[in-house]
Amino acid sequence: MLIKILGSAAGGGLPQVNCTCCNCAAVRRGDPGIAARTQSSLAVSADGKVWTLLNASPDIRQQLAAMHEFAPDPDKGPRSSPVEAVVLTNGDLDHVAGLLSLREGIRFTLYASREVLAALDVNTVFDVLDRAVVHRSALTAGKSAKLCNGDRELGLEVESFTVPGKVALYLENAAAGPGLGTREGDTLGLRITDPRSGAAFFYIPGCATVDAALASRLRGASLVLFDGTLFTDDEMIALGLSSKTGRRMGHISMSGEEGSLAAFASLGVARKVYTHINNSNPALREGSPERRTAEAAGWEIAYDGMEIRL
Amino acid sequence: MLIKILGSAAGGGLPQVNCTCCNCAAVRRGDPGIAARTQSSLAVSADGKVWTLLNASPDIRQQLAAMHEFAPDPDKGPRSSPVEAVVLTNGDLDHVAGLLSLREGIRFTLYASREVLAALDVNTVFDVLDRAVVHRSALTAGKSAKLCNGDRELGLEVESFTVPGKVALYLENAAAGPGLGTREGDTLGLRITDPRSGAAFFYIPGCATVDAALASRLRGASLVLFDGTLFTDDEMIALGLSSKTGRRMGHISMSGEEGSLAAFASLGVARKVYTHINNSNPALREGSPERRTAEAAGWEIAYDGMEIRL
Repeated sequence: MLIKILGSAAGGGLPQVNCTCCNCAAVRRGDPGIAARTQSSLAVSADGKVWTLLNASPDIRQQLAAMHEFAPDPDKGPRSSPVEAVVLTNGDLDHVAGLLSLREGIRFTLYASREVLAALDVNTVFDVLDRAVVHRSALTAGKSAKLCNGDRELGLEVESFTVPGKVALYLENAAAGPGLGTREGDTLGLRITDPRSGAAFFYIPGCATVDAALASRLRGASLVLFDGTLFTDDEMIALGLSSKTGRRMGHISMSGEEGSLAAFASLGVARKVYTHINNSNPALREGSPERRTAEAAGWEIAYDGMEIRL
Repeated sequence: MLIKILGSAAGGGLPQVNCTCCNCAAVRRGDPGIAARTQSSLAVSADGKVWTLLNASPDIRQQLAAMHEFAPDPDKGPRSSPVEAVVLTNGDLDHVAGLLSLREGIRFTLYASREVLAALDVNTVFDVLDRAVVHRSALTAGKSAKLCNGDRELGLEVESFTVPGKVALYLENAAAGPGLGTREGDTLGLRITDPRSGAAFFYIPGCATVDAALASRLRGASLVLFDGTLFTDDEMIALGLSSKTGRRMGHISMSGEEGSLAAFASLGVARKVYTHINNSNPALREGSPERRTAEAAGWEIAYDGMEIRL
């Protein structure tokens, strides 16, 4: 199983168009030790030829063009794509907007929860994905499904499960957004398995807290790619970037008693990679105290183009 | 007045993720004489500091990050943007999807026809543009309006006018898309004027034919940026990329008796620039017979980052 990180940043990317925080400014200057990052998405393949995307970020066109694996095969005619499936973990714009760039007749299967598919259905702009070529398939939390494109099996299985998400909509700022993915239960984690080899990994780019059920599920995993949005729960408030804590946005912080560093300390996960990292996160800077803290705890910080073989 | 071409390609860009045509293949190989292009959008400014975007392409994040003019000013606090207005010429996805990337609290005015604003209204995904910070302003065809952001005038005026567009919806393939911008009258041309200097230009990235009214309007203009989608009306059919002619997609071809080269021949336009150029168009290749034909007729081929001062 081959995994490519297409984008490792949280919504807005690094740099974010309107942000002057020290990380965004450093990337604009071309400082060493911190690389530009596009918005979070990952591609996985059983054979290195046919790919499934986990989330479709607004940067998808740039991401697919940057890596030769995703170029269409000239032997397959004038139009084709190695992208044969897309799995969504929620309805956040930074996870679904890229679907609008997969509109040129690419034949794939779109997997998401029933609620997210319904949210896409009522937004007619997504009808640009012609149902004759883009089949929708509902994921049922707790169940496993073979990833397919039409009749063809892609050689991987996906299991989805709900993870702690944002606070209930009625507690949110009314102006918070389009009402997608803001209810408890709307955020999924994924476990992708190659049934031939038994290799498996977890992809959880958004998660508000590691509760007992999630800890139990992840214990002893060989690879977890996990929500690395913030280092400190109130870092966006401290930097003057937002009025919201991480938890209120549905994102656990790395640090703190209830943070992910502490939560994973005793789970025995063989390889732990932070992704979906917000531009405000000081762990993005190589050599920073926060980066060293994460690395000392056995975590890697994902970067665009990162490749993992399982 | 300063004009920057953010993106000069038609929908899909160059290379297009699923296309193996000779232009897309050449760009992937890094061949000389043909440059990658993002999807069509243009930025204009009266002072080089405050910018108005004409259309918001899906590539907007990459486009704004690529040019220093669009970096936020650190003196304006942790979050700001020099983008203060966006004007849409129609509801095509390659012109509106980028709005979803202007969601991080950027305060701007969104100008579009009443019909396009209504189409955005019924797609709740665009509610991510908080109405408290993104004011919607309807353009009335044939009328001129001062571009503003809140109370602040941006120093430019926009006049919009309908141009010949796609065939009526009932003639279109029912699966053609989201139903935006597919009716006669839904496609606008824009004339942007700097009232201080009197400098003015036309931006017409989509236009099915140059009729008498449009010819009369453009006669003697100092600058027209015009629909350069296709060189030949049936080139996408000939390349096996599509079953549609250019005209059916709402795009005049460069060549042919009714093409734009012929239509502009006697209009006395001082500077003519093709933009919104499809990846199939052979005029994208420097030195090609089609490129030489366009250049001999006084046309320039836009490229990403192209700058024009008026």
